[in-house]
Amino acid sequence: MHTLVLLRHGESTWNLENRFTGWTDVDLTPTGVTQARDAGRLLKAEGFEFDLCYTSVLKRAIWTLWHCLDTMDRTWLPVVNRWQLNERHYGALQGLNKADMAQQYGDAQVLVWRRSYDTPPPPLTAEDPRCERSDPRYSGLSTEQVPLTECLKDTVARVLPLWHEELAPQIRSGKRLLVAAHGNSMRALVKYLDGISDADIVGVNIPNGIPLVYTLDVDLKPVAKRYLGDAEAVAAAAAAVAAQGQARP
Amino acid sequence: MHTLVLLRHGESTWNLENRFTGWTDVDLTPTGVTQARDAGRLLKAEGFEFDLCYTSVLKRAIWTLWHCLDTMDRTWLPVVNRWQLNERHYGALQGLNKADMAQQYGDAQVLVWRRSYDTPPPPLTAEDPRCERSDPRYSGLSTEQVPLTECLKDTVARVLPLWHEELAPQIRSGKRLLVAAHGNSMRALVKYLDGISDADIVGVNIPNGIPLVYTLDVDLKPVAKRYLGDAEAVAAAAAAVAAQGQARP
Repeated sequence: MHTLVLLRHGESTWNLENRFTGWTDVDLTPTGVTQARDAGRLLKAEGFEFDLCYTSVLKRAIWTLWHCLDTMDRTWLPVVNRWQLNERHYGALQGLNKADMAQQYGDAQVLVWRRSYDTPPPPLTAEDPRCERSDPRYSGLSTEQVPLTECLKDTVARVLPLWHEELAPQIRSGKRLLVAAHGNSMRALVKYLDGISDADIVGVNIPNGIPLVYTLDVDLKPVAKRYLGDAEAVAAAAAAVAAQGQARP
Repeated sequence: MHTLVLLRHGESTWNLENRFTGWTDVDLTPTGVTQARDAGRLLKAEGFEFDLCYTSVLKRAIWTLWHCLDTMDRTWLPVVNRWQLNERHYGALQGLNKADMAQQYGDAQVLVWRRSYDTPPPPLTAEDPRCERSDPRYSGLSTEQVPLTECLKDTVARVLPLWHEELAPQIRSGKRLLVAAHGNSMRALVKYLDGISDADIVGVNIPNGIPLVYTLDVDLKPVAKRYLGDAEAVAAAAAAVAAQGQARP
């Protein structure tokens, strides 16, 4: 039996401003910091121990992990940063307000961009100052590996190789992993682990800053899954995520 | 030519309380956080780039690195934690007030404990609750590797193998390293790099939170060395370190 804990980052400044974020590297809000630290306290209170941590190369996930580890007294644990755990790339929508977009294009179109499994938002151009291809954190990648937009299917296609080649072997070898990631990179993992269909995964809302604990058998099939903490708080947090991106009244 | 940057952690709660710290895992003060963030701003302003970071397994150095990386927009850089970069172990003095000890044992004795190259302070007993042998961060070490006390000579004896086996090969391979460490683990490196004698190294005071930049030739011999930032601030910070541990008037 193995334990795997997934943690979506705490509230970011652009969550708060209701803007599409994607690969844009924005900070946690003070609320996000509190969520991250609360996640660490929950994990510590239940006696969770980890051998190795994974996170993305985006600071809202990195800081979430750091604050979580600090409240667990585990700042010294090894941390591996992988771009494959980044949020889904949001293309030309990055930086734009979700409610403004809903007003301009309609709730239905925004819902397609946010929740379609295989329809990506309009791409960034390579010349767009928002394009990440010249960002030094991606200097080891080929140009084509740095996306200009992604649908969830594209995100799954980069997360799963990381799972199979790196995370799963570590877990099989006995390492207890904590993975701090993003809404859609976590969806990719949850989809695979729980065998969720392309149609159903887009309706799965993952709350910010609440540890998701998987118990896996020797074949890494889930035998149990639960969010830590107060059930009402978990439900409210998931509902808040689902409600984003609607036109303002 | 290679560049190596060393950074002593910012002010810790026990620096502020004038207590012997050693391997005790204490937090940064708000001043310490500011120092760490200022260090990052200095490094960024001068255009420093790094490929790999090293730090200890103690959170005052880890948080110093994290805050420094954050202000450099480099939270995603790989970080390696090594116990060999820990502060010198302060034995049975850990937790005690430096000025109290000076009043009780005299300035001369405290100066021996603080500044003798090869006389360690009285050891902790293995049963002392302050003893780190059951701390999970050292679970990979043999009992003998977790010290009960150390003199600077002992610290040098664990830092230099890390230098030769890990840091130096990384630098030679072209990696630009940022090392966030402690007063005495930095002294160990500075002693080796600059060829400082056992007698002279104990008089070298390393200020908190100010990047120390070495330029090394192909044989990793220093050809230049400087602290970043305002010269007066650097001198004042080093003098503040030297003045610790004197009996209060």
